[in-house]
Amino acid sequence: MNARYETGAACASTRLAVAGDRIAQLDAALEDSWHELVAPSRFSTRIRSGTFDARLYAIYLIETYHYTLHNSRNQALAGARAFDREPQFLKFCFKHASEEVGHELLALHDLCSLGLERDTLVLPAPLPSTEVLIAYLYWISQTGNSVQRLGYSFWAERCYRFIGPLLQSARSRLRLQDSQMTFLVAHAQIDDAHGREVVETMERHCRDAADWECVARAMHTSLRLTAQVLDDVEAAFTQLASGRSRHYAFLSCLA
Amino acid sequence: MNARYETGAACASTRLAVAGDRIAQLDAALEDSWHELVAPSRFSTRIRSGTFDARLYAIYLIETYHYTLHNSRNQALAGARAFDREPQFLKFCFKHASEEVGHELLALHDLCSLGLERDTLVLPAPLPSTEVLIAYLYWISQTGNSVQRLGYSFWAERCYRFIGPLLQSARSRLRLQDSQMTFLVAHAQIDDAHGREVVETMERHCRDAADWECVARAMHTSLRLTAQVLDDVEAAFTQLASGRSRHYAFLSCLA
Amino acid sequence: MNARYETGAACASTRLAVAGDRIAQLDAALEDSWHELVAPSRFSTRIRSGTFDARLYAIYLIETYHYTLHNSRNQALAGARAFDREPQFLKFCFKHASEEVGHELLALHDLCSLGLERDTLVLPAPLPSTEVLIAYLYWISQTGNSVQRLGYSFWAERCYRFIGPLLQSARSRLRLQDSQMTFLVAHAQIDDAHGREVVETMERHCRDAADWECVARAMHTSLRLTAQVLDDVEAAFTQLASGRSRHYAFLSCLA
Amino acid sequence: MNARYETGAACASTRLAVAGDRIAQLDAALEDSWHELVAPSRFSTRIRSGTFDARLYAIYLIETYHYTLHNSRNQALAGARAFDREPQFLKFCFKHASEEVGHELLALHDLCSLGLERDTLVLPAPLPSTEVLIAYLYWISQTGNSVQRLGYSFWAERCYRFIGPLLQSARSRLRLQDSQMTFLVAHAQIDDAHGREVVETMERHCRDAADWECVARAMHTSLRLTAQVLDDVEAAFTQLASGRSRHYAFLSCLA
Repeated sequence: MNARYETGAACASTRLAVAGDRIAQLDAALEDSWHELVAPSRFSTRIRSGTFDARLYAIYLIETYHYTLHNSRNQALAGARAFDREPQFLKFCFKHASEEVGHELLALHDLCSLGLERDTLVLPAPLPSTEVLIAYLYWISQTGNSVQRLGYSFWAERCYRFIGPLLQSARSRLRLQDSQMTFLVAHAQIDDAHGREVVETMERHCRDAADWECVARAMHTSLRLTAQVLDDVEAAFTQLASGRSRHYAFLSCLA
Repeated sequence: MNARYETGAACASTRLAVAGDRIAQLDAALEDSWHELVAPSRFSTRIRSGTFDARLYAIYLIETYHYTLHNSRNQALAGARAFDREPQFLKFCFKHASEEVGHELLALHDLCSLGLERDTLVLPAPLPSTEVLIAYLYWISQTGNSVQRLGYSFWAERCYRFIGPLLQSARSRLRLQDSQMTFLVAHAQIDDAHGREVVETMERHCRDAADWECVARAMHTSLRLTAQVLDDVEAAFTQLASGRSRHYAFLSCLA
Repeated sequence: MNARYETGAACASTRLAVAGDRIAQLDAALEDSWHELVAPSRFSTRIRSGTFDARLYAIYLIETYHYTLHNSRNQALAGARAFDREPQFLKFCFKHASEEVGHELLALHDLCSLGLERDTLVLPAPLPSTEVLIAYLYWISQTGNSVQRLGYSFWAERCYRFIGPLLQSARSRLRLQDSQMTFLVAHAQIDDAHGREVVETMERHCRDAADWECVARAMHTSLRLTAQVLDDVEAAFTQLASGRSRHYAFLSCLA
Repeated sequence: MNARYETGAACASTRLAVAGDRIAQLDAALEDSWHELVAPSRFSTRIRSGTFDARLYAIYLIETYHYTLHNSRNQALAGARAFDREPQFLKFCFKHASEEVGHELLALHDLCSLGLERDTLVLPAPLPSTEVLIAYLYWISQTGNSVQRLGYSFWAERCYRFIGPLLQSARSRLRLQDSQMTFLVAHAQIDDAHGREVVETMERHCRDAADWECVARAMHTSLRLTAQVLDDVEAAFTQLASGRSRHYAFLSCLA
């Protein structure tokens, strides 16, 4: 049978050892990237300084809504086009996609819980940097190396250890209840299991150096684009708070 | 909120009643189409006449392998592009897709169980009519009405009451064990649950007459294309058996 | 440079000789396919018998409108995804696409010239077999062998020598002016040049037996699907003329 | 006829006046964006300072090769999916695409003219920011507003008045001949005519405020992503020149 994928059961233990090394490297690279790209960002600085109000969280949630609306979709697309992988990889993609469906509604719920009326709410279009993130996630899901999107899942599902302190700052500053942070709380829980599945999927389906390098590249690039989104959220808040922009004027009731 | 989908909870009971009627109509149309398109086909006639051997079943399994390789994929694509539907519709698509992954391997297993060596087996390309069926299933999954692919699932998951007698004829003629019919046996079982889910999904997500008409159209058209595949399987067997074609010569060991 | 395409200038003359043989084979296969699939069809028989009126031509034009609306698009897509071919192949696809743009309006013009009011005309959806043809043309344009769509262009641009007698029958039976057959007349002229370009493109860009076989397969399959469309046009006319269907009732003024 | 596009000939003169204003606004916004994003960039500063050698130009050409390889393709895709526009818009897209085919080879030619051997040259993968630009250009070509990609063409085809001084600096610093700058020189010429066609296409096919806003947004975002590419080219050169990276070590012969 002209199998287009091969697992090489014979060398499974070697592959697992290699995978362990690669995942440790990814973890180290993620920590480095986070400290390079997100920790010193204007967004993080703003949060740490405490000089913000609920409008910053609202703009963050709007952007989160926008890209999350696409995440289960591009996760599914990543499976649909993977003709060079074992069926279990497709199963991971489709199952994972089914579990991410509708999570944008958590962000919408949290947004409304701040005091916006859902029935009359008209969300503004995503910020350009959010649109770029969405475009990139579809791109890595639909073209190029067929497992590379795992690099996005890898950090997106395990960033809570980094993002925790920022969250605590925002929560205490804005006196938020858990019920107003369902997106982040739910994800911190769901993504714990997902994070393990992502690692297992990498161990099983990353076959060679090219796979691992594409995963690392997708991780770094998607994290960089996300850092840009966060900084643009901060910039939008600054413009709104200073009265220089009317774009998010409908959030003024939250000030 | 500018919801792009609406369920109209108020009229849920009316919708359910309408759905019941529509599903009864679909069932009747399926029975009509089956009796018009498949029952009198050269394929069915050949099976009923008993004038075939394992090569006919082998060619059937090869074509089944080819289109089944794509079914979980286009099922996932149908969800990924449905921006005008509730999240539960996406969840159905992705979950369903995850459950269909790898079923082509059942067809491959059954093929090899007839006496072909899997390691050296090189499957021929799909018959043109199989490629047309595949093309059409991607088409309805990716374009046009976003629930129309349910029309394919509707008949594909509940055709076993029709196909049962044909199966019994083939099984007894070829003295097949259940272990040589895993694709059909497994599907008859799996698809029973799937069939109910398809109906529930239709009841919930088909909103208007246009939805139901697109579903009916996709059902009829995909059934017609499948009937063409079956007739071309029969024609390929006839050509092989009569020595007029060498295309499936590697199956001669099964004669 | 890791060129992903190669022309092998050294063996250009050999390739041209092979191409000449292959094109002669395609021409012979086209003639065979036409005489097998179209000549004896219910559509052709109906035309030859003279037992039809303008409603048959109208239904034909409606279906022609529907698939022609997509032809320049899928021609362009065939170039956009061809990463394994020389730039000249893309240039052919995009230029050819630009020249086919809007030809569906010729079919629409001819339809209205029969006596339908363009402002109030609402075209019915394509027949299922037309939708299948459209789906298949997108499929061969977007997936599989990257030059295979040439097999469709090959016959579509040079079928006028076959279709001529049918046209003359229809024209004299319906007393049509050239100005009521702009789609066919314009295409017969335009496609003459296009037909030569298609052959030159094949000579230059079909590199190996696999390419030629995919082209031949696409030719045969698209011709078969078109024959099905023609027969379904005839069936729709028969149903309309016999009063068994109201689907094309708006054409009754043409009877 | 259920026309899905409308030009409203009656108000053509009003539309042209609006278009004139909009284009003037775009031109002003382009000048602002250039001076905000590109003029003060590390890339521009590096060029102006004269502290670079041919390796900077080489890296620039490599990235140019990568995104240019896709530009005719996504230009064609923008037409293929535009079902809500007049045929002339598709014609513009496909004709324009055909004229952009193969321009990546100009960049490759210029790269080799610096002293690299084409036969043995293996181009490195695009920088992540180049991949993001490519992903975004496909995204705006395939989804969202169907004329928005004009915003990219608008600046890409008329940036030469801005980029001229940078080019002159590089040319004199590196003592380049015109024959080593074919990409830029040819584009400056070709794009002059293209630039006018882009403006005419906007005047004719941008119908409402939403169209113009999407065009403006695509212009700004694609320019921002391009500025990021240029800065990453500069960063890659700095790393190479300082010996901190081996990624472009094959360019050391150009130092």
